[in-house]
Amino acid sequence: MIRQEKISIRTGGRGTTDVTGEIQAMVQKTGVQTGLCHVFLHHTSASLMLCENADPSVRRDLETFMTQLAPDGDPMFEHTAEGPDDMPAHVRSVLTSNHLSIPVSNGRCALGTWQGIYLWEHRHQSHTRSLTVSIQD
Amino acid sequence: MIRQEKISIRTGGRGTTDVTGEIQAMVQKTGVQTGLCHVFLHHTSASLMLCENADPSVRRDLETFMTQLAPDGDPMFEHTAEGPDDMPAHVRSVLTSNHLSIPVSNGRCALGTWQGIYLWEHRHQSHTRSLTVSIQD
Amino acid sequence: MIRQEKISIRTGGRGTTDVTGEIQAMVQKTGVQTGLCHVFLHHTSASLMLCENADPSVRRDLETFMTQLAPDGDPMFEHTAEGPDDMPAHVRSVLTSNHLSIPVSNGRCALGTWQGIYLWEHRHQSHTRSLTVSIQD
Repeated sequence: MIRQEKISIRTGGRGTTDVTGEIQAMVQKTGVQTGLCHVFLHHTSASLMLCENADPSVRRDLETFMTQLAPDGDPMFEHTAEGPDDMPAHVRSVLTSNHLSIPVSNGRCALGTWQGIYLWEHRHQSHTRSLTVSIQD
Repeated sequence: MIRQEKISIRTGGRGTTDVTGEIQAMVQKTGVQTGLCHVFLHHTSASLMLCENADPSVRRDLETFMTQLAPDGDPMFEHTAEGPDDMPAHVRSVLTSNHLSIPVSNGRCALGTWQGIYLWEHRHQSHTRSLTVSIQD
Repeated sequence: MIRQEKISIRTGGRGTTDVTGEIQAMVQKTGVQTGLCHVFLHHTSASLMLCENADPSVRRDLETFMTQLAPDGDPMFEHTAEGPDDMPAHVRSVLTSNHLSIPVSNGRCALGTWQGIYLWEHRHQSHTRSLTVSIQD
């Protein structure tokens, strides 16, 4: 059986938002003990990521890495309709992911000790991002 | 319950093929209203990607980016058995993905407004690529 | 119905470990004929990857590529708490994946002829890595 819910997250421009709490609360509300939790992002210029959750410098370094790998305003990009961060945002999205699937065990997403679920905004402006969470048992 | 079907897609060499229509038709045929649609590519030198579907320059820029990141014939590569695009194709596949999981809502893959499902061929020659589509409710 | 099992794999430091045999044995034990097999890695400095399984030079070249893309000890990284391979390991994990979902057909993971399932350790030291395998029909 699949329970599905759509939520919106407001991002603060380029950077990560920890959504672990929201996802865990949705799993607990369903009462599912053993199953799978699927999270889907309805956008192509942001990502979902499982990342180290203890030291914020990890997320800063990922930002630095991506900024160097796909620089804003790189003249190789033709698609600049929405500005210099438009195409780099699509590149980052394709190199990471826009869906996650996590086992549910003992009524919770069975994340590793250092794993958090992050929404990674790649555009400089803040956006409202839609996610669909599907929980199965 | 899981309905599973295997399909073949003929690619035209390096580049993207929009398979959104095929996948949506398979979902509709099952009659599933709320569920999940899983698409799996049985190859390691092509990818499945959710990408911006409005402006073809986005896919051209992704091609340009990948060509620069993992150039054909790069002397660092040892595995050249099938030619200069052999190893870059594996690199591209590993950096992107060969499986997608998309929520089904109201009888359709609940894609974002600008999300399309693309098969991305990384070899220069055209190939017949196999996909398995699994639809759950 | 979802059957779930947690396993541990000992890695030998940076490099790949073929786990196809373990996963296939777990699928066969459940007796599931048509379904999905989900594999989840509870860590952010290692990856799960579907990769060419015939020629080991492919995995060597992927290692070479990643070493060049995210070099150990790169001064751009701030997060060096666990040494020069700490942050590159997180980068590699984010660029690849820590979960896989594979169709089960005829009682087996329906991998392509050249697809193997690999645990990719990104740290130089050997580690014990936990995976949860969830099998659905």
